[in-house]
Amino acid sequence: MVHRAPDTIEVAQGAFGHFSHGLATGEWKPFVEMLTDDFTFWFPVGPYQGLNVGKERAIAFFEYVSEVFNQGLSVTLDRVTSNETTVVFEFRDEGKMRGEPYKNRIAVSFDVRGDKICGYREYFGSDGKSN
Amino acid sequence: MVHRAPDTIEVAQGAFGHFSHGLATGEWKPFVEMLTDDFTFWFPVGPYQGLNVGKERAIAFFEYVSEVFNQGLSVTLDRVTSNETTVVFEFRDEGKMRGEPYKNRIAVSFDVRGDKICGYREYFGSDGKSN
Repeated sequence: MVHRAPDTIEVAQGAFGHFSHGLATGEWKPFVEMLTDDFTFWFPVGPYQGLNVGKERAIAFFEYVSEVFNQGLSVTLDRVTSNETTVVFEFRDEGKMRGEPYKNRIAVSFDVRGDKICGYREYFGSDGKSN
Repeated sequence: MVHRAPDTIEVAQGAFGHFSHGLATGEWKPFVEMLTDDFTFWFPVGPYQGLNVGKERAIAFFEYVSEVFNQGLSVTLDRVTSNETTVVFEFRDEGKMRGEPYKNRIAVSFDVRGDKICGYREYFGSDGKSN
């Protein structure tokens, strides 16, 4: 059976708000401040494909994301699921990738430890052209 | 706040067992029997990329999957999250795609209605070569 600690979803929702803000504006500081020092993330494609370890690596990644999408991405959240430690956000994003129209469907799975995010896994549900 | 009906996760877990069995064996009937007639699914890539509507379309898709992975895929379930209507399974799969080594990280999000699955969305977390 799956139960969740009372604060897991609230911590993750706060982090997801900062994550969306980072995608929209390139301002990642509020999200990065919620990451543990031993933060890890998985990304599906490109130079950060696979497992990435450490907060510094994450900071470099978010800079890279905001170079690729330098006009920002807007996020539409569709669905949230959770268990005691993990919260999954299904959303669509839209914007321009290096000037070209971009749309995708995404799932990100945030692992919560205390009031921080200690890891996430990102999954792509579409092709960058439709969502 | 997120709550779940008592049976949502159990229905989805039963369906996920049949889904994994289909991937491993090519025998999709038990999974297909759990789908509503108006079942829809989203798939990220290939000839079924995007939204697919109807049970017949799903049956054709599963035949296609079991042609591409004709020796079967083995599934390792890592994580389950849920809300009142939706259950997300994060897993890794491994096998051969048209004879070549294949590995991926996957999230599938099942929507439950009564004792059936009325839709799902599949997301890819890796590149087909590592998981």
